[in-house]
Amino acid sequence: MGNGVMDDTDRPVDARIVRTRNDVLEAVIDVLVEEGWDAVTHPNVARRAGYSKATVYSHWPERLDLLRDALARFGDMPHHVPTGDVRADVIGELISFRDALVEHRLDRVLVALADQAMTNPEVVEIRDAFVDDGARLIGEILEPVASGSAHLAAVTMVCGAVLYSSLLQGVALDDDVIEQVADIALGGVTA
Amino acid sequence: MGNGVMDDTDRPVDARIVRTRNDVLEAVIDVLVEEGWDAVTHPNVARRAGYSKATVYSHWPERLDLLRDALARFGDMPHHVPTGDVRADVIGELISFRDALVEHRLDRVLVALADQAMTNPEVVEIRDAFVDDGARLIGEILEPVASGSAHLAAVTMVCGAVLYSSLLQGVALDDDVIEQVADIALGGVTA
Repeated sequence: MGNGVMDDTDRPVDARIVRTRNDVLEAVIDVLVEEGWDAVTHPNVARRAGYSKATVYSHWPERLDLLRDALARFGDMPHHVPTGDVRADVIGELISFRDALVEHRLDRVLVALADQAMTNPEVVEIRDAFVDDGARLIGEILEPVASGSAHLAAVTMVCGAVLYSSLLQGVALDDDVIEQVADIALGGVTA
Repeated sequence: MGNGVMDDTDRPVDARIVRTRNDVLEAVIDVLVEEGWDAVTHPNVARRAGYSKATVYSHWPERLDLLRDALARFGDMPHHVPTGDVRADVIGELISFRDALVEHRLDRVLVALADQAMTNPEVVEIRDAFVDDGARLIGEILEPVASGSAHLAAVTMVCGAVLYSSLLQGVALDDDVIEQVADIALGGVTA
């Protein structure tokens, strides 16, 4: 790309910066899930992304900013598209969560965040932002049927069921168990 | 302790072996929760327990056996004493689980097991035995009110709520939210 292209408008520059940032942030997640939290260093990420260390440092001088931005981007994963039918939406969103744990290796990201947040207060904020973001839709879906501590209980129960089976039993919940989870939660909050 | 004491009966020897084993297995958990899974080595554990490496190797030639036995012993933590009142028993057992996550550092043990089981098939078996053992009582408590996939859903929901809040939100669920969790589960399975 010649300089002439970039002199009149900064759009080509922006596009290239966006691509660089996306490549690097994707590499952060790859390193995190394959090699673990401690392996997410500027040199490792630069090598994985195919950029120079200087490039990575220039965009993210601090390692935690690199992780924060990578997790924010990673958090933009597919969610269920709500239909307005609460039962269908709870089931659909739990299936999205279950699938993301396996297909997007969200299980490893969540374990890494839980692990690091236990000893590093700076990671608590990153974990909380990531988890709040991921649970926002299921919270909205359940708002018409529960409020206050019943809403909190219902959200943690339905998300917790998917998390528990993945992390502690190594299984992805079957669709029919997810339907049971939704029916128990919805039957219970209106009981 | 003189040899004369031990010549006629092996009971003193047994008591000493039991004490040694308990000291070492307790040290395994201390090292695990404070320094992480990889730090659980024969030399580290021996140093922490105040025994020689040879003693630790003689009882547990394999590192995974050391971890397996330590987790089995650690799993003998206090559970709720069932009263026969299902609601009271669900609440009591969830409070025991919540308290163990904090007071016995069960949160760190579970994260370590979840983490290691993702990449080491030998740990899957250790994690599954530990989790099955821990969830046995809540499963029994819920048996009178749910069966099949509804029972599985209810167990993963109530345990999952406590796990989710601890690992992903860094909070211990309040008693009143735990009561809501129990009421939603029990209301939902009988709805």
